[in-house]
Amino acid sequence: MRSWTRWLAVLLAAGLTWSAHAEEALVKKQVFSMTGFKTVGGQPIKQVRLGYETYGKLNDAGDNAIFIAHFYSGTSHAAGKYKATDAAPGYWNSIIGPGKPIDTDKFYVVSADSFANLNAKDPNVVTTGPASIDPDTGKPYGMRFPVVSMRDSVRAHWMLLQTLGVRKLYAVAGASGGSVQAMEWAALYPGYVERVIHVIGPGFDIHPYVIGLLDAWAAPVRLDPRWNGGDYYGKDEPIDGVAESLKLVTLTARAFGWAEQSFGYQWAGTRNPGSGMDQAFAVQDALTKAGIARAKTTDANSILYMSKANQLYRLTDDEVKGIKAKLLFVPAKSDQIFPPELSRRAAERFRALGGKAEVFEIDGNGGHLDGVLAIDRAGEAIRRFLAD
Amino acid sequence: MRSWTRWLAVLLAAGLTWSAHAEEALVKKQVFSMTGFKTVGGQPIKQVRLGYETYGKLNDAGDNAIFIAHFYSGTSHAAGKYKATDAAPGYWNSIIGPGKPIDTDKFYVVSADSFANLNAKDPNVVTTGPASIDPDTGKPYGMRFPVVSMRDSVRAHWMLLQTLGVRKLYAVAGASGGSVQAMEWAALYPGYVERVIHVIGPGFDIHPYVIGLLDAWAAPVRLDPRWNGGDYYGKDEPIDGVAESLKLVTLTARAFGWAEQSFGYQWAGTRNPGSGMDQAFAVQDALTKAGIARAKTTDANSILYMSKANQLYRLTDDEVKGIKAKLLFVPAKSDQIFPPELSRRAAERFRALGGKAEVFEIDGNGGHLDGVLAIDRAGEAIRRFLAD
Repeated sequence: MRSWTRWLAVLLAAGLTWSAHAEEALVKKQVFSMTGFKTVGGQPIKQVRLGYETYGKLNDAGDNAIFIAHFYSGTSHAAGKYKATDAAPGYWNSIIGPGKPIDTDKFYVVSADSFANLNAKDPNVVTTGPASIDPDTGKPYGMRFPVVSMRDSVRAHWMLLQTLGVRKLYAVAGASGGSVQAMEWAALYPGYVERVIHVIGPGFDIHPYVIGLLDAWAAPVRLDPRWNGGDYYGKDEPIDGVAESLKLVTLTARAFGWAEQSFGYQWAGTRNPGSGMDQAFAVQDALTKAGIARAKTTDANSILYMSKANQLYRLTDDEVKGIKAKLLFVPAKSDQIFPPELSRRAAERFRALGGKAEVFEIDGNGGHLDGVLAIDRAGEAIRRFLAD
Repeated sequence: MRSWTRWLAVLLAAGLTWSAHAEEALVKKQVFSMTGFKTVGGQPIKQVRLGYETYGKLNDAGDNAIFIAHFYSGTSHAAGKYKATDAAPGYWNSIIGPGKPIDTDKFYVVSADSFANLNAKDPNVVTTGPASIDPDTGKPYGMRFPVVSMRDSVRAHWMLLQTLGVRKLYAVAGASGGSVQAMEWAALYPGYVERVIHVIGPGFDIHPYVIGLLDAWAAPVRLDPRWNGGDYYGKDEPIDGVAESLKLVTLTARAFGWAEQSFGYQWAGTRNPGSGMDQAFAVQDALTKAGIARAKTTDANSILYMSKANQLYRLTDDEVKGIKAKLLFVPAKSDQIFPPELSRRAAERFRALGGKAEVFEIDGNGGHLDGVLAIDRAGEAIRRFLAD
């Protein structure tokens, strides 16, 4: 390949072209605060602060809003950049923006950080969770923070939308844990939500197998002695446990084809992995490094709380029956966490109840993460669903 | 249900009936010793001791032997009981015994413990691995034990069979890591092995995704501070890391249908899992308890060595071409570690080279472990393959 075509290929592979780069909207993190919140479980959270971002403009009727809920390890940075020199835009930038499937020329897009967001140490994330200061003690909550469900985040985000003047949601969308919140929106506020885009999601309840998997994701945190029952703030943090946890999250969010295509049998170093217990394969090394890199901004206790929040997701039959929104399920073909079968089953169940549901499957080998990194493949399906 | 039918159902569910119970053969663990072994990687292991069991009798020609290789966390206890009062027989007892598919009235069945067997602390297991005494120092090897591959166990077991007078293997069979050893037998000793029964196996190489998974299985051991770089013998052992590791092994060796059918959304205790961070679902609790129970007889370092041994499995093209045995692949439909697709691909590859290969898929929801716990479903396919 000639050098200029190779150079172009590198740019395209990175998802960057000059024109797209030039169009990238600049966004700003804002903060929503409220007092006196009570969780679904009946526990008080006196001071709530959650970050949010908006793209596009709310119309006078207040009815052109689309809410984007984030995934397990995600944040409210769904699109755009904070400054032009940012290395990468928000995670769904390929489908959110002017002229894109979630068209910010038409829609007012809002995304917000959840309770117990993993990235509590990221300066661009604002969350209330175990790393927050308990106003009663002046110290971080740690494991004394109340259990929060995905529904709690949805209830807080609903209050945010009231303050923003959103009279109804044209749609609510999210990937994985975000898809759970999207469905919770439709169940909790059936008259408020017109469309749900449920990307790489579990359907109407978390599967019992994934209850076990979420527990496994959290386990390394508890094994790290520096976790110390959750009281590590201001001390040496359980960074090894967090890194191992995020490594396992990434592994399970990927798939067989991804490992084969990205790494095959390459070695991490120059020595054969058979030559010593400390010599690894490239796939191990890449997962290890990704875990370590992400651990820097991740709060350990929040992993435990986020696993719990996802484990608790289960709509009742009456709640499913009460959903008035149209549903678009977008599973990913190679997803090992929420296989497409779960979306198909949920769509059938909803149709049998008289509801409207479509399924669009993302083709690819990237696993669960195809719902984030390859969401552009569902772009036109999402555009059509929103036009309907 | 009346009490006597319930009682019968319990017996049947446990795989026990009076008649089967009466037929159960009593077996004895024996020990094979040798000196001066050198690993595939060129490292010496001065003293080797490996346990083995035999069922049935070797014929005068020495050609009616079937070798059974064990899986990752398994042992050479493939069938029978040590004493009539044992709670359960060996793991493949449903297909090994008089009149069973691997018929001990016809065949001389041998099974042996691998190098670095996980169950080093089980009094019925004899292995040489990181928990063994290094004759040079008089202390346990720890992480100074050389890297061993599955091929190393096969080479040692070959020497065992020579001392037993086995002139050729009518067949070699194994589940998972045992299937890897079975294929290594056929590649290393093509003139010696007539049939391979490759149950819930990867084919001719470990998949790169599973290289990552094997690493994830081992990770909790290293996180436990008592692991101490592998030097914990005679001290407080890293039992928490081992329990978490075995818990993850079990979870990944199971499947969605298993979790749904066995646990659903049951709680571990009497309180809703949403009521506190310490309240769990039944599926979590069962996995935790299974991990803790199995940790008692498991050596932590051996988990690291066994993961490495499996990661290194990859036959060269020439080795695959050189296999003369007939192959029976027995994948399990719901297997998430080595999905049936891997068996189908390997069978096609072998047939394209002019070899004979069949595939029989075990139906079920039990996941990878169906190749152990539901092996009776493949019993008649195995019987036919052995008659051919």
